[in-house]
Amino acid sequence: MEVDLPDVVSEVRAAFERYESALVGNDVDTLDALFRDDPRTIRYGGGENLYGYAAIAAFRQARSPAGLARTLAKTVITAYGRDVAVASTLFYRGSAPGKVGRQMQTWVRFGDGWRVVAAHVSVIEEQGK
Amino acid sequence: MEVDLPDVVSEVRAAFERYESALVGNDVDTLDALFRDDPRTIRYGGGENLYGYAAIAAFRQARSPAGLARTLAKTVITAYGRDVAVASTLFYRGSAPGKVGRQMQTWVRFGDGWRVVAAHVSVIEEQGK
Repeated sequence: MEVDLPDVVSEVRAAFERYESALVGNDVDTLDALFRDDPRTIRYGGGENLYGYAAIAAFRQARSPAGLARTLAKTVITAYGRDVAVASTLFYRGSAPGKVGRQMQTWVRFGDGWRVVAAHVSVIEEQGK
Repeated sequence: MEVDLPDVVSEVRAAFERYESALVGNDVDTLDALFRDDPRTIRYGGGENLYGYAAIAAFRQARSPAGLARTLAKTVITAYGRDVAVASTLFYRGSAPGKVGRQMQTWVRFGDGWRVVAAHVSVIEEQGK
């Protein structure tokens, strides 16, 4: 198992940044395109548990586009082999002082590109560290 | 990318079940052994953000062994290729009525076996669905 092959990390970083831009811009088409269209794709969100691509896409359609701006911190992308990587990041929103968000995604390379197959987003009290 | 090869899913399910037994029994040695010993291993926990194996192991050592029992629901293990899988599950604790926990782990096969390289645990209000 080769970890952090530079070209793989670079590819996933580009996909991750594309996702982040789409998220804060509420570009639903791009967000949808970057998740794997499969019933086994899972997204545990800030307040909901979404099993399957259809549930995730429906959630995005219904989501308010307000207040999505955020600042990232401690982002780590680690690639395992040539076809899988995990992207983890903390995030902060001006609308939620004293709170820290955590986003973790597993990305897999398919024939048509990198896709998120599993994601988990949650918000907790900042620990002051 | 071959998804859900039966022998791979079976191996990861066994590792996942071993982890679950160790968690509710607070078997810290087994929990430590099942996470990859590497600075890039990340665990976002219910109330803390742990970067690196050392931080994760220190957290487990300090954790109270009380109230760890839980019931799992909607557990899904999906394997991508022969060396990576994602295990996602909801969980409920008698001590936290009205709440649902979410645990997502990415498992990778190394020369010495399957290890968790990234994990995210959080608890939210149950959505009544």
